Amino acid sequence: MDKVNIAHKLSRFSDHWNPRIVGELNGQHVKLVKLKGEFIWHSHDDEDELFYVLKGELRMEFRDRAVTLRENEFLIVPHGVEHRPVAADEVSLMLFEPKTTLNTGNQASDRTRTHLESI
Amino acid sequence: MDKVNIAHKLSRFSDHWNPRIVGELNGQHVKLVKLKGEFIWHSHDDEDELFYVLKGELRMEFRDRAVTLRENEFLIVPHGVEHRPVAADEVSLMLFEPKTTLNTGNQASDRTRTHLESI
Repeated sequence: MDKVNIAHKLSRFSDHWNPRIVGELNGQHVKLVKLKGEFIWHSHDDEDELFYVLKGELRMEFRDRAVTLRENEFLIVPHGVEHRPVAADEVSLMLFEPKTTLNTGNQASDRTRTHLESI
Repeated sequence: MDKVNIAHKLSRFSDHWNPRIVGELNGQHVKLVKLKGEFIWHSHDDEDELFYVLKGELRMEFRDRAVTLRENEFLIVPHGVEHRPVAADEVSLMLFEPKTTLNTGNQASDRTRTHLESI
């Protein structure tokens, strides 16, 4: 039951597309991740995902539109909805999603991260 | 599936101890709330709660200690743990918690809010 300081946790890693776990509650994980570049198209069969921009700018692409998120904005992507995160420059995000959530959802890929570090 | 801008949502209310719902996912709510003063001691039988400080400072009291949270810090209070939020000056928080969560937990009180507004 210690508090979590976001800036401190973000200072502990610099790689992209590799979420860290910083909290757990009610079967959900709180994660931090840094993104740069384009991800793969994917969806999650069962999990809704919340993307909260801490620093930078995130473009979330859907098949029919895109949403640009800036600092202190968040977006909830419901399960079953195909999406692709894109970041022209580095963006730092907080994610809130079920513990079962895989980063690449239903698309097994070399970008899939199956074992996430808790920091 | 619209994005949520935190500053905009916070500008839409000014009263204290009255959480607003700003998101829903996986059976959980994302809420915003402004606090000032002392709340009542309570715990939640089944729900873990996450308190994220957006602006200001929150003192979370437990029976044996207290934790002071500043901007961009969060704390998870597990179910069953008695706590009391205290804010000397106004603090704005984001909460993540199950949809079933009552603000006063197991302590029915005139401060209990049973019907929360979605904004």
